[in-house]
Amino acid sequence: MKNPPSLDQLISALRVLPGVGPKSAQRMAYHLLQRDKPGAEKLARALEHALSHIGHCQRCNTFSETPLCALCADPARRQDQLCVVEMPADMLTLEHTQSYDGLYFVLMGRLSPLDGIGPRDLPLEKLAHRALDGAVREVILATNFTAEGETTAHALSELLKGHGLTLTRMARGLPVGGELEHTDPGTLAQALFERRGVTGG
Amino acid sequence: MKNPPSLDQLISALRVLPGVGPKSAQRMAYHLLQRDKPGAEKLARALEHALSHIGHCQRCNTFSETPLCALCADPARRQDQLCVVEMPADMLTLEHTQSYDGLYFVLMGRLSPLDGIGPRDLPLEKLAHRALDGAVREVILATNFTAEGETTAHALSELLKGHGLTLTRMARGLPVGGELEHTDPGTLAQALFERRGVTGG
Ligand SMILES: [Zn+2]
Ligand SMILES: [Zn+2]
Repeated sequence: MKNPPSLDQLISALRVLPGVGPKSAQRMAYHLLQRDKPGAEKLARALEHALSHIGHCQRCNTFSETPLCALCADPARRQDQLCVVEMPADMLTLEHTQSYDGLYFVLMGRLSPLDGIGPRDLPLEKLAHRALDGAVREVILATNFTAEGETTAHALSELLKGHGLTLTRMARGLPVGGELEHTDPGTLAQALFERRGVTGG
Repeated sequence: MKNPPSLDQLISALRVLPGVGPKSAQRMAYHLLQRDKPGAEKLARALEHALSHIGHCQRCNTFSETPLCALCADPARRQDQLCVVEMPADMLTLEHTQSYDGLYFVLMGRLSPLDGIGPRDLPLEKLAHRALDGAVREVILATNFTAEGETTAHALSELLKGHGLTLTRMARGLPVGGELEHTDPGTLAQALFERRGVTGG
């Protein structure tokens, strides 16, 4: 006694999704076939459409349906600042702050030995080519402040140093509105270490 | 600054999957487009294939690619026992015990007011028609021993009573190898209440 073959194939295919094990793949397949066939149809079409339409921006490497993404094609952005982030979502988050008007480069990942992602899996040549275009003066290494993000930032600084670029990293410290009592010791230590002068009375 | 439209469509389409919120849909879309395009293609094809090939068995209502599923078409199964389960996975689990050789009926769900699933969303007419075919003598109400499963079993017994069928429910009690000390009070109480006579010395 087994599932019909096309059901087993669907359950197995759903496991390509990150974080989906055999039990949730089965639950998803049952749900789609029993309660949401239009949703399953929509998902199949969205997958096909995205696969045939989405590539990478030639300049910043983010997902784009056009050779240049809208941001890279925007003449109002500063050309001398390049902010390197791990994922497109990071770029969106930074854009949301409305406090940066330079350009980006999206790594589409981070160095992660545990996941088998090494330097060859990141677009380092494309980044070097982009950062050394002559217009860029400062590269902001805005990978996450996780162990993997820090390792990646270090590798990027090794890659880009010695070419007259200013390499920076965002400050670590307390969040706006943050209370000392509720801040973890590592962040507090870093905030102390990176303390800045104030102009006082 | 936004995602490309076809990426947003894919993120939105992935949310038809149960348990997938905006964050994990985004993570899934990034993963498929960046690291597993063959997997995305495979998923799209598996969805289309399942949608066009999988229907319900005419007799037992489980997923099937043929009008009668393999189990219902098997002449070696007893025709006088009908075991009603919530989902196809329950049928597979019971089959795995190799301790039942009757037939099944799969509800494809359970009564669940919180999820908006009422009696009209379950194939109760199909079940009544199946159970009253003249060959069935006993109907085993094998819905889960959860609140929803118990409610469903009660509704099914109301539906099927008064037609001369024997209606049964699986026993509750300690698991094989179970120790009293490590059994929850509700199960213990039920095991006491459903105690059976033993032939002893
Ligand atoms: Zn771009
Ligand atoms: Zn069947």
